Amino acid sequence: MKLRLAAALALSAPTLIASGYDKVDPFIGTGGEGHTFPGAVAPFGMVQLSPDTDTGCQIRDCYSHAAGYRYDDPTIQGFSHTHFSGAGHSDLGDFLVMPVSGDAVPLEPGDPKVPESGYRSRFNHADEVAQPGYYAVTLADAGVRAEMTAGTRVGVHRYAFPAGKAAHLVLDLRSSLYNYPGKILWSSLRLHADGTLTGTRQTRGWAPDRQLFFAIRFSAPLTGHAFVSTEKDVTYKGFQGPGRGSDALAERAGRALVARLDFGQLSQPLEVKVALSSVDEAGALANLDSEAGGFDQIRAATRQAWTQALGAVDLQAPAPMAKSLYTALYHSLLAPSVAGDADGRFRGPDNQVHRADGYTFRSTFSLWDTFRAEHPLLALVQPQQTTSEIVRSLIDSRRYSPDGILPVWQFQGRETWTMIGYHAVPVIADAYLKGIRGFDADAALDAMVASATYAPYGGLGEYQRLGYVPIDREPEAASKTVEYAYDDWTIARMARAMGRIDVAKQFEARAGNWRNSFDPKTGFVRARLASGAFRTPFNPTAINYGSDYTEGNAWQYSWFVPQDQEALFRTMGGDKAAVAKLDAMFDYDNSKLDYSHAEDIAGLIGQYIHGNEPSHHVAYLYDHAGAPWRTQARLTQIVASQYKPTPDGLSGNDDLGQMSAWLFFTGLGFYPVTPGSLQYAIGRPFVERAVLNLPDGKRFTVVADGMAPGNDYVGQVALKGRPLTRSYITHDEIMAGGELRFVMQKLPNKRWGTARSARPYSMSSARE
Amino acid sequence: MKLRLAAALALSAPTLIASGYDKVDPFIGTGGEGHTFPGAVAPFGMVQLSPDTDTGCQIRDCYSHAAGYRYDDPTIQGFSHTHFSGAGHSDLGDFLVMPVSGDAVPLEPGDPKVPESGYRSRFNHADEVAQPGYYAVTLADAGVRAEMTAGTRVGVHRYAFPAGKAAHLVLDLRSSLYNYPGKILWSSLRLHADGTLTGTRQTRGWAPDRQLFFAIRFSAPLTGHAFVSTEKDVTYKGFQGPGRGSDALAERAGRALVARLDFGQLSQPLEVKVALSSVDEAGALANLDSEAGGFDQIRAATRQAWTQALGAVDLQAPAPMAKSLYTALYHSLLAPSVAGDADGRFRGPDNQVHRADGYTFRSTFSLWDTFRAEHPLLALVQPQQTTSEIVRSLIDSRRYSPDGILPVWQFQGRETWTMIGYHAVPVIADAYLKGIRGFDADAALDAMVASATYAPYGGLGEYQRLGYVPIDREPEAASKTVEYAYDDWTIARMARAMGRIDVAKQFEARAGNWRNSFDPKTGFVRARLASGAFRTPFNPTAINYGSDYTEGNAWQYSWFVPQDQEALFRTMGGDKAAVAKLDAMFDYDNSKLDYSHAEDIAGLIGQYIHGNEPSHHVAYLYDHAGAPWRTQARLTQIVASQYKPTPDGLSGNDDLGQMSAWLFFTGLGFYPVTPGSLQYAIGRPFVERAVLNLPDGKRFTVVADGMAPGNDYVGQVALKGRPLTRSYITHDEIMAGGELRFVMQKLPNKRWGTARSARPYSMSSARE
Repeated sequence: MKLRLAAALALSAPTLIASGYDKVDPFIGTGGEGHTFPGAVAPFGMVQLSPDTDTGCQIRDCYSHAAGYRYDDPTIQGFSHTHFSGAGHSDLGDFLVMPVSGDAVPLEPGDPKVPESGYRSRFNHADEVAQPGYYAVTLADAGVRAEMTAGTRVGVHRYAFPAGKAAHLVLDLRSSLYNYPGKILWSSLRLHADGTLTGTRQTRGWAPDRQLFFAIRFSAPLTGHAFVSTEKDVTYKGFQGPGRGSDALAERAGRALVARLDFGQLSQPLEVKVALSSVDEAGALANLDSEAGGFDQIRAATRQAWTQALGAVDLQAPAPMAKSLYTALYHSLLAPSVAGDADGRFRGPDNQVHRADGYTFRSTFSLWDTFRAEHPLLALVQPQQTTSEIVRSLIDSRRYSPDGILPVWQFQGRETWTMIGYHAVPVIADAYLKGIRGFDADAALDAMVASATYAPYGGLGEYQRLGYVPIDREPEAASKTVEYAYDDWTIARMARAMGRIDVAKQFEARAGNWRNSFDPKTGFVRARLASGAFRTPFNPTAINYGSDYTEGNAWQYSWFVPQDQEALFRTMGGDKAAVAKLDAMFDYDNSKLDYSHAEDIAGLIGQYIHGNEPSHHVAYLYDHAGAPWRTQARLTQIVASQYKPTPDGLSGNDDLGQMSAWLFFTGLGFYPVTPGSLQYAIGRPFVERAVLNLPDGKRFTVVADGMAPGNDYVGQVALKGRPLTRSYITHDEIMAGGELRFVMQKLPNKRWGTARSARPYSMSSARE
Repeated sequence: MKLRLAAALALSAPTLIASGYDKVDPFIGTGGEGHTFPGAVAPFGMVQLSPDTDTGCQIRDCYSHAAGYRYDDPTIQGFSHTHFSGAGHSDLGDFLVMPVSGDAVPLEPGDPKVPESGYRSRFNHADEVAQPGYYAVTLADAGVRAEMTAGTRVGVHRYAFPAGKAAHLVLDLRSSLYNYPGKILWSSLRLHADGTLTGTRQTRGWAPDRQLFFAIRFSAPLTGHAFVSTEKDVTYKGFQGPGRGSDALAERAGRALVARLDFGQLSQPLEVKVALSSVDEAGALANLDSEAGGFDQIRAATRQAWTQALGAVDLQAPAPMAKSLYTALYHSLLAPSVAGDADGRFRGPDNQVHRADGYTFRSTFSLWDTFRAEHPLLALVQPQQTTSEIVRSLIDSRRYSPDGILPVWQFQGRETWTMIGYHAVPVIADAYLKGIRGFDADAALDAMVASATYAPYGGLGEYQRLGYVPIDREPEAASKTVEYAYDDWTIARMARAMGRIDVAKQFEARAGNWRNSFDPKTGFVRARLASGAFRTPFNPTAINYGSDYTEGNAWQYSWFVPQDQEALFRTMGGDKAAVAKLDAMFDYDNSKLDYSHAEDIAGLIGQYIHGNEPSHHVAYLYDHAGAPWRTQARLTQIVASQYKPTPDGLSGNDDLGQMSAWLFFTGLGFYPVTPGSLQYAIGRPFVERAVLNLPDGKRFTVVADGMAPGNDYVGQVALKGRPLTRSYITHDEIMAGGELRFVMQKLPNKRWGTARSARPYSMSSARE
């Protein structure tokens, strides 16, 4: 009896330490504007194996399917291996696989409105399961139970086909996300003698020239196959190889390929193990072999990895908040994802293959978003290996960049030139200043300086000459000027810490350039012409492409001086004026404004736009004006209105973890307003208790006494048992371990944190 | 004085041993149907740097420009780096460079009929120089003297621009040979910080999916550049990188790229050193560095290499014949060309990168043509390294073939599936039987058997079942049946020599399969249906695609039983009937036939078609019928009518050396009718004296006493001073060294070589 029980336990999943694993809900953000995906992925995994509900988008409506899956859609088109988590523009959806049962195997996806018109299938959310590293659904039309799991560089499908029906897979190389006509430049399929299937696809999408390779092994032998080209208008087809007139070729290449793979009737579920590589097919094959085991083994290993990664924090909070926060942590641990092969090779910005020297190359850098809170969060919960590898990847990306500069928006090693700034710079500086090592700091500083002085990029030539980006030479000039000035300040900070005083002085001077874009008359950051005049007409509420601003207007961008909010507030007329202007922003009557023409403008509170990044630090700025209780009130307002533990629970694109990292920090009661300052502005916690399990065994605990509905203000704060009268804590204080204790109350404490010396970092008043 | 003289000598080209170098005329075959190119190439070089006179062909008329250059054309469009020598179908013309002088730099080639309408330029043949490894021309419109040379993996251009005018190059990645719409799948350009230019192009041409990379260094610094995309109708262009709105980008990718490269006014000629690689840009860069020096140094090294290679024979013949024969030897030493990088890496038939283990991978295998005389010639004049590397390349090609079989028509590692048969098999067998080693003979035999038994290829499934290829299942079935049977015989020969008796017996049986396609009633080789009946209607003079035959008709194909001509002649009714039928073929009145619809049908003598390969052994078959004097008469007739030392001097495509190898052997007085038999049928010499300088220092000398116009018959033959009464010599007799002496006379010696035992090999009567 006892023996039988032990055997039964051994067959079940390995016993796990309790953690946030079960509280994560990957469906959060898969509806609304979140653009997250529900499928299977390992922490920072190269493979994101997830259902695509519709890839048939055309131009404008692609946006809604940026992550392939849309919660409201009635059908699943298939399961593809690459997805961004929360991107505002998109690509990927590589190598779509769909099971089909029975004799008829459609090779077109069909119309979602016409059931059984193609290989797509209806499904019910009741039949779905999504966990970190695991996704399952029943495909109603095919009668197939589909399960997905993923390792670092592999994805494993498991399909239980209905008894008595032939099992098939469709592998559709024509399917892709943001699949504009002409996107698929080339693709190929090759069946090896041992039954392994390899292939490649070259696409012209967001990355204008991207190659991805795959290798697939099946748990059952193929009984037949067809590699079909549906391309029309091929002027010259060359000579025919073996299998003339047949689709049962050993290989096929073309611009529109779809494969039918037959397995006959199966007595066991079919497992399909897929590895990817940006390098070559040999890389994909080696990646396939580098992670041992089948579905259950990969799933268990990834579950273990997630349990460990999510164990960075132990949370005690109301169930909906715990769900939101653990899911936020989960979403923040997806990118920058592994982009290099198991053997160290990777494809760089020059589209050539290089070898990472003793580390794993990572990509998916959405830096305009993620320099704010996502990278500071990683520097806290994954400081050494992950952050060090990120910095090494950035340095190597610059080394192999045709322009000799750091990444802007890169994935799979390929640059997209999306958004503005050189925000790899604050990521590196923040990591270095936090004591994270394992990279060549001199090479890093060289790369940062090179990126900040490369004249052909984003008006940097004029910026260096004039002290601002002129709007008659370069669009979105106001946003660029203020963001460059902040990035410059982080270069100065790192250079000073390295003793490179010449560089520090040069960039400290540039850090004040935001002043050149501030208009004291209107009180807004605005764009100047090369002549020096501000561009007119000026409408602080207008949001347009090619305007003075990037995805925003003067209201959001006038707060972007994280290196020197104190000086900004002075130019605005002092703290009181700043507070009044902040209030005016949040309380703005936007009922008559229509921003539906602009992507990424979602989550409005007046002119505060939580769904997009320029606003993310703004609620904390009351701290800088000596009014932390206003920060607390605004955070209460934002968290209540912008996050829900439901599919439509993110008010904007998650942006590769930035929206989630904002919530995670905010939930714990502090936020990195100024990466590079080594400080976190204190807000208000949304947890009863949180223990950060720091890498060296230390623990930093946040406790909120009196946490209850309505107790939305901080009465007092204590650090390690001593009263904390300032509205910030430092990175060192967290890393040293200890307890940060809040007392929550119904009414604001309007005196706490008001003293000038109590406010977070500003370079004007910094004494270091 | 003496010192100065020595210095002057040292500056000039190295002193060379007298050889055929100066007698080679690369223009032979550049007019008419020869499809050779006049440009610079090293022996078996990867780079064929040659002028393209017009790459603007559309579908049908591409044929005339298969080698890029056509002697009759009035303009040169540019100089590209890859060309086939004499192919009947085409591709290549990669990376076209054209110098332009002055301020206006057109980026389109312009119309050849409208001078100065584009970057193309008029030229005069009087200004052209072509030598092995060297080509020069004056571009009249640009006023530029252009010189080309090539090493193994590099090509070097040298352009002398007119004084006082700015120097530019146009690099047109849109230009290609057989440039059907849609051929250019993708291309890219990248300018490195040190001025090196790299790039790639992926094409869908004869090879349905081919990538080629280049690296270029210039002797003068770039003063400016534009990378221009002329592609229209790009649905989605992505985001703009640095240099927004400018073409002065560090990199550009697209489907239609052209680069303008500026050098300002130059006081020295501009040298442009280009390396290629099928592997990657790193491979191209390494290949660039692997061959030291500039134009003069590379030219001198290649001249030395040609002098040595052409030194395989010392000829004494009338000047026109010496020119034709040395040029023939030159043309036979161009392919199979080096396709692997200096570091051993190469791209295989699976489109993946592999490493050659201690040898250099070669490709450009036009095997249906070259198994006949080109490979036997290489086995004689380049036996060890070249032939051994060829066999190793064939074995590795099979190893990495998606179909697991040997190449059919491969270049740059990529299979085209052109023509029929598995003629890598006789190439390997002939080499092995001639004692050439340095490869894995077991792997070779495995590859040969695999290729001969792969059912999906060319009707081999039915061939194995029925003993012939049925025409209702597979086109060109008669040609396939007889060619397979010969290939099978060579497998048997090699297997027997290796002691693999089981394999030998299997393929000896198959070697008789030609009988299943011979129709005794009509006396022709014909195609049968699967039912066993011959297909009707039957017209022995019809030449059509998809007919019973490959590029020919019953007249040519009915002689293809090289392994057993004796048995064939018996089925035809005996030697007399065979001689009569041979005469009927040559003497056929073709004045009413029109074969202009079929490519590659050129050089007709009755129904004998010297411009295409199936006829190549036919004139020697009189030897097999005991009438060598008829062979001698026919050779006199063929050489006089089919070869001239002029641009239109080849009556058909040179086919990667096969037309030339035929002439070379024939000029020396013998020909390999049956590769694998170790015999050469004796014809009649066209030289006064020829010394084959064999690799181990031995010499084999052919002397023709009494050689004079009208003395077209062989009176007697002596080998090493003893009368030779048989109409063949053996490979061993040649390799042993010695003298083959012919006495030429006006009247035929009808008794010589008539005895049955005096005739060349037939398996029916072979006693081994």
